[in-house]
Amino acid sequence: MKVFDFTSSMETLSLEECHGLLARESTGRVAFADDEFPMILPVNYAYVDGLVAFRTGAGTKLSKIPMHPVAFEVDGDEGSYVWSVLVRGHAREVTTALGARYEELRRTRIPIVASGDKGHWIAIEIADITGRSFASPS
Amino acid sequence: MKVFDFTSSMETLSLEECHGLLARESTGRVAFADDEFPMILPVNYAYVDGLVAFRTGAGTKLSKIPMHPVAFEVDGDEGSYVWSVLVRGHAREVTTALGARYEELRRTRIPIVASGDKGHWIAIEIADITGRSFASPS
Repeated sequence: MKVFDFTSSMETLSLEECHGLLARESTGRVAFADDEFPMILPVNYAYVDGLVAFRTGAGTKLSKIPMHPVAFEVDGDEGSYVWSVLVRGHAREVTTALGARYEELRRTRIPIVASGDKGHWIAIEIADITGRSFASPS
Repeated sequence: MKVFDFTSSMETLSLEECHGLLARESTGRVAFADDEFPMILPVNYAYVDGLVAFRTGAGTKLSKIPMHPVAFEVDGDEGSYVWSVLVRGHAREVTTALGARYEELRRTRIPIVASGDKGHWIAIEIADITGRSFASPS
Protein backbone atom coordinates (compact mmCIF):
# COMPACT_ATOMS: atom_id res chain seq x y z
CA MET A 1 0.00 0.00 0.00
CA LYS A 2 1.32 3.40 -0.95
CA VAL A 3 1.54 5.79 1.99
CA PHE A 4 1.97 9.46 1.20
CA ASP A 5 2.39 11.51 4.33
CA PHE A 6 3.12 15.10 3.49
CA THR A 7 3.08 15.92 7.19
CA SER A 8 6.08 13.69 7.91
CA SER A 9 9.67 14.15 6.92
CA MET A 10 10.26 13.68 3.22
CA GLU A 11 13.11 13.89 0.78
CA THR A 12 13.30 16.10 -2.26
CA LEU A 13 14.26 14.21 -5.41
CA SER A 14 16.97 15.62 -7.64
CA LEU A 15 16.09 16.72 -11.15
CA GLU A 16 18.05 13.71 -12.47
CA GLU A 17 16.00 11.35 -10.33
CA CYS A 18 12.79 12.98 -11.58
CA HIS A 19 13.88 12.62 -15.23
CA GLY A 20 14.79 8.98 -14.63
CA LEU A 21 11.45 8.15 -13.03
CA LEU A 22 9.49 9.96 -15.74
CA ALA A 23 11.40 8.02 -18.40
CA ARG A 24 10.91 4.69 -16.62
CA GLU A 25 7.19 4.87 -15.90
CA SER A 26 4.33 4.86 -18.39
CA THR A 27 1.15 5.76 -16.49
CA GLY A 28 0.41 9.17 -14.99
CA ARG A 29 -2.45 11.54 -14.28
CA VAL A 30 -3.02 14.90 -15.90
CA ALA A 31 -5.03 17.67 -14.22
CA PHE A 32 -6.48 20.77 -15.82
CA ALA A 33 -9.15 23.37 -15.22
CA ASP A 34 -12.60 22.40 -16.47
CA ASP A 35 -15.43 24.79 -15.69
CA GLU A 36 -16.32 24.77 -12.00
CA PHE A 37 -14.00 21.94 -10.93
CA PRO A 38 -10.60 20.71 -12.02
CA MET A 39 -10.41 17.47 -13.99
CA ILE A 40 -8.01 14.54 -13.55
CA LEU A 41 -7.44 11.95 -16.27
CA PRO A 42 -5.20 8.88 -16.03
CA VAL A 43 -3.06 8.56 -19.15
CA ASN A 44 -0.37 6.39 -20.65
CA TYR A 45 2.47 8.63 -21.66
CA ALA A 46 5.92 8.77 -23.17
CA TYR A 47 8.64 11.09 -21.89
CA VAL A 48 10.76 12.11 -24.84
CA ASP A 49 12.62 15.12 -26.12
CA GLY A 50 11.96 16.82 -22.77
CA LEU A 51 8.19 16.59 -23.28
CA VAL A 52 5.50 14.48 -21.69
CA ALA A 53 3.32 13.17 -24.54
CA PHE A 54 0.03 11.32 -24.33
CA ARG A 55 -3.11 10.76 -26.37
CA THR A 56 -6.62 12.00 -25.76
CA GLY A 57 -9.81 11.45 -27.65
CA ALA A 58 -10.71 13.91 -30.36
CA GLY A 59 -12.81 16.80 -29.17
CA THR A 60 -11.76 16.70 -25.54
CA LYS A 61 -11.05 19.91 -23.71
CA LEU A 62 -7.29 19.44 -23.81
CA SER A 63 -7.23 19.12 -27.58
CA LYS A 64 -9.34 22.24 -27.99
CA ILE A 65 -7.38 24.70 -25.90
CA PRO A 66 -3.90 25.67 -27.08
CA MET A 67 -1.30 26.02 -24.35
CA HIS A 68 -3.53 24.81 -21.55
CA PRO A 69 -1.85 25.03 -18.12
CA VAL A 70 -1.73 21.50 -16.69
CA ALA A 71 -0.21 19.42 -13.93
CA PHE A 72 1.00 15.88 -14.55
CA GLU A 73 1.82 13.47 -11.75
CA VAL A 74 3.49 10.06 -11.60
CA ASP A 75 4.04 8.07 -8.43
CA GLY A 76 5.32 4.70 -7.38
CA ASP A 77 6.13 2.35 -4.55
CA GLU A 78 9.67 1.01 -4.18
CA GLY A 79 8.94 -1.01 -1.04
CA SER A 80 10.97 0.99 1.45
CA TYR A 81 9.71 4.30 0.13
CA VAL A 82 7.11 5.86 -2.12
CA TRP A 83 7.73 8.75 -4.47
CA SER A 84 5.81 11.30 -6.50
CA VAL A 85 7.01 13.44 -9.41
CA LEU A 86 4.99 16.51 -10.39
CA VAL A 87 5.36 18.20 -13.77
CA ARG A 88 3.72 21.51 -14.48
CA GLY A 89 3.57 23.18 -17.83
CA HIS A 90 1.51 23.96 -20.88
CA ALA A 91 -0.24 21.31 -22.92
CA ARG A 92 -0.81 21.71 -26.62
CA GLU A 93 -1.93 19.48 -29.40
CA VAL A 94 0.92 17.97 -31.34
CA THR A 95 1.10 18.71 -35.04
CA THR A 96 2.33 16.47 -37.81
CA ALA A 97 6.11 16.48 -37.48
CA LEU A 98 6.19 15.85 -33.76
CA GLY A 99 3.18 13.60 -34.07
CA ALA A 100 5.08 11.24 -36.34
CA ARG A 101 7.78 10.91 -33.71
CA TYR A 102 5.21 10.04 -31.07
CA GLU A 103 3.49 7.57 -33.33
CA GLU A 104 6.78 5.73 -33.55
CA LEU A 105 7.10 5.80 -29.78
CA ARG A 106 3.54 4.75 -29.42
CA ARG A 107 4.18 1.56 -31.30
CA THR A 108 7.08 0.64 -29.07
CA ARG A 109 6.33 2.17 -25.69
CA ILE A 110 2.67 3.03 -25.23
CA PRO A 111 0.33 0.06 -25.29
CA ILE A 112 -2.78 0.62 -27.31
CA VAL A 113 -6.13 -0.99 -26.81
CA ALA A 114 -7.35 -2.25 -30.18
CA SER A 115 -9.82 0.22 -31.61
CA GLY A 116 -10.29 2.84 -34.23
CA ASP A 117 -7.47 5.26 -33.51
CA LYS A 118 -9.09 8.63 -33.23
CA GLY A 119 -6.70 9.99 -30.64
CA HIS A 120 -4.85 13.27 -30.72
CA TRP A 121 -1.35 13.60 -29.36
CA ILE A 122 -0.95 16.15 -26.61
CA ALA A 123 2.49 17.29 -25.45
CA ILE A 124 3.26 19.09 -22.20
CA GLU A 125 5.97 21.70 -22.51
CA ILE A 126 7.49 21.49 -19.07
CA ALA A 127 7.79 24.62 -16.95
CA ASP A 128 8.98 22.87 -13.80
CA ILE A 129 9.54 19.39 -12.38
CA THR A 130 9.57 18.56 -8.69
CA GLY A 131 9.75 15.23 -6.91
CA ARG A 132 9.54 13.92 -3.39
CA SER A 133 9.97 10.62 -1.63
CA PHE A 134 8.54 9.36 1.66
CA ALA A 135 9.92 6.52 3.74
CA SER A 136 7.39 3.70 4.13
CA PRO A 137 6.20 2.82 7.64
CA SER A 138 8.30 -0.02 9.04
CA MET B 1 0.88 -2.17 -16.63
CA LYS B 2 -2.20 0.00 -16.48
CA VAL B 3 -3.47 0.98 -19.90
CA PHE B 4 -5.95 3.85 -20.07
CA ASP B 5 -7.18 4.40 -23.58
CA PHE B 6 -9.87 7.02 -23.68
CA THR B 7 -10.00 6.72 -27.45
CA SER B 8 -11.18 3.10 -27.31
CA SER B 9 -14.48 1.72 -26.18
CA MET B 10 -14.98 1.99 -22.45
CA GLU B 11 -17.64 1.19 -19.91
CA THR B 12 -19.28 3.62 -17.56
CA LEU B 13 -19.28 2.43 -13.94
CA SER B 14 -22.49 2.59 -11.94
CA LEU B 15 -22.67 4.86 -8.92
CA GLU B 16 -22.72 1.76 -6.71
CA GLU B 17 -19.53 0.50 -8.33
CA CYS B 18 -17.90 3.90 -7.81
CA HIS B 19 -18.89 3.95 -4.12
CA GLY B 20 -17.56 0.42 -3.68
CA LEU B 21 -14.20 1.23 -5.27
CA LEU B 22 -13.83 4.46 -3.29
CA ALA B 23 -14.54 2.56 -0.06
CA ARG B 24 -12.13 -0.26 -0.96
CA GLU B 25 -9.10 1.80 -1.99
CA SER B 26 -6.94 4.04 0.17
CA THR B 27 -4.67 6.03 -2.15
CA GLY B 28 -5.84 8.74 -4.53
CA ARG B 29 -4.75 12.02 -6.08
CA VAL B 30 -6.29 15.40 -5.45
CA ALA B 31 -6.06 18.27 -7.95
CA PHE B 32 -6.75 21.93 -7.34
CA ALA B 33 -5.96 25.32 -8.82
CA ASP B 34 -2.68 26.82 -7.66
CA ASP B 35 -1.63 30.08 -9.28
CA GLU B 36 -0.57 29.59 -12.88
CA PHE B 37 -0.80 25.79 -12.97
CA PRO B 38 -3.01 23.19 -11.33
CA MET B 39 -1.50 21.06 -8.57
CA ILE B 40 -1.79 17.31 -8.02
CA LEU B 41 -1.03 15.67 -4.67
CA PRO B 42 -1.14 11.94 -3.93
CA VAL B 43 -2.98 11.30 -0.66
CA ASN B 44 -4.10 8.47 1.55
CA TYR B 45 -7.78 8.90 2.19
CA ALA B 46 -10.84 7.48 3.88
CA TYR B 47 -14.27 7.44 2.27
CA VAL B 48 -16.83 7.82 5.02
CA ASP B 49 -20.16 9.48 5.61
CA GLY B 50 -20.29 10.31 1.90
CA LEU B 51 -17.11 12.38 2.13
CA VAL B 52 -13.56 11.82 0.93
CA ALA B 53 -11.27 12.75 3.83
CA PHE B 54 -7.50 13.10 3.85
CA ARG B 55 -4.77 14.96 5.67
CA THR B 56 -2.53 17.73 4.47
CA GLY B 57 0.25 19.58 6.15
CA ALA B 58 -0.58 22.73 8.04
CA GLY B 59 -0.39 25.87 5.95
CA THR B 60 -0.93 24.26 2.59
CA LYS B 61 -3.17 25.91 0.08
CA LEU B 62 -6.00 23.43 0.61
CA SER B 63 -6.17 24.14 4.31
CA LYS B 64 -6.22 27.89 3.73
CA ILE B 65 -9.04 28.16 1.23
CA PRO B 66 -12.54 27.28 2.41
CA MET B 67 -14.65 25.37 -0.09
CA HIS B 68 -11.91 24.93 -2.64
CA PRO B 69 -13.14 23.27 -5.86
CA VAL B 70 -11.14 20.07 -6.31
CA ALA B 71 -10.99 16.85 -8.29
CA PHE B 72 -10.06 13.56 -6.67
CA GLU B 73 -9.15 10.47 -8.66
CA VAL B 74 -8.60 6.82 -7.78
CA ASP B 75 -7.68 4.11 -10.27
CA GLY B 76 -6.75 0.47 -10.30
CA ASP B 77 -5.87 -2.56 -12.33
CA GLU B 78 -7.99 -5.70 -12.04
CA GLY B 79 -6.00 -7.70 -14.60
CA SER B 80 -8.59 -7.92 -17.35
CA TYR B 81 -9.52 -4.27 -17.07
CA VAL B 82 -8.44 -0.99 -15.51
CA TRP B 83 -10.77 1.55 -13.95
CA SER B 84 -10.78 5.16 -12.82
CA VAL B 85 -13.19 6.93 -10.49
CA LEU B 86 -13.35 10.72 -10.51
CA VAL B 87 -14.87 12.73 -7.68
CA ARG B 88 -15.44 16.44 -8.01
CA GLY B 89 -16.55 18.71 -5.21
CA HIS B 90 -15.52 21.28 -2.66
CA ALA B 91 -12.77 20.72 -0.13
CA ARG B 92 -12.84 22.32 3.26
CA GLU B 93 -10.88 21.92 6.43
CA VAL B 94 -12.55 19.64 8.91
CA THR B 95 -13.41 21.10 12.28
CA THR B 96 -13.39 19.36 15.64
CA ALA B 97 -16.48 17.16 15.63
CA LEU B 98 -15.88 15.65 12.22
CA GLY B 99 -12.16 15.68 12.87
CA ALA B 100 -12.59 13.33 15.84
CA ARG B 101 -14.41 10.87 13.61
CA TYR B 102 -11.60 10.95 11.07
CA GLU B 103 -8.98 10.56 13.76
CA GLU B 104 -10.67 7.33 14.71
CA LEU B 105 -10.64 6.23 11.08
CA ARG B 106 -7.09 7.29 10.73
CA ARG B 107 -6.00 4.92 13.44
CA THR B 108 -7.68 1.99 11.77
CA ARG B 109 -7.62 2.72 8.05
CA ILE B 110 -5.06 5.32 7.08
CA PRO B 111 -1.47 4.34 7.75
CA ILE B 112 0.60 7.10 9.25
CA VAL B 113 4.30 7.55 8.96
CA ALA B 114 5.71 8.14 12.45
CA SER B 115 6.23 11.83 12.96
CA GLY B 116 4.90 14.82 14.76
CA ASP B 117 1.31 14.94 13.64
CA LYS B 118 0.76 18.44 12.38
CA GLY B 119 -1.72 17.50 9.68
CA HIS B 120 -5.09 19.04 9.07
CA TRP B 121 -8.03 16.97 7.96
CA ILE B 122 -9.60 18.03 4.70
CA ALA B 123 -12.97 16.70 3.55
CA ILE B 124 -14.35 16.82 0.03
CA GLU B 125 -18.07 17.42 -0.13
CA ILE B 126 -18.92 15.50 -3.27
CA ALA B 127 -20.74 17.25 -6.10
CA ASP B 128 -20.49 14.38 -8.56
CA ILE B 129 -18.87 10.97 -8.98
CA THR B 130 -18.12 9.32 -12.31
CA GLY B 131 -16.25 6.14 -13.13
CA ARG B 132 -15.05 4.32 -16.20
CA SER B 133 -13.40 1.01 -16.99
CA PHE B 134 -11.27 -0.03 -19.94
CA ALA B 135 -10.65 -3.57 -21.08
CA SER B 136 -6.95 -4.49 -20.95
CA PRO B 137 -5.19 -5.41 -24.19
CA SER B 138 -5.23 -9.19 -24.64
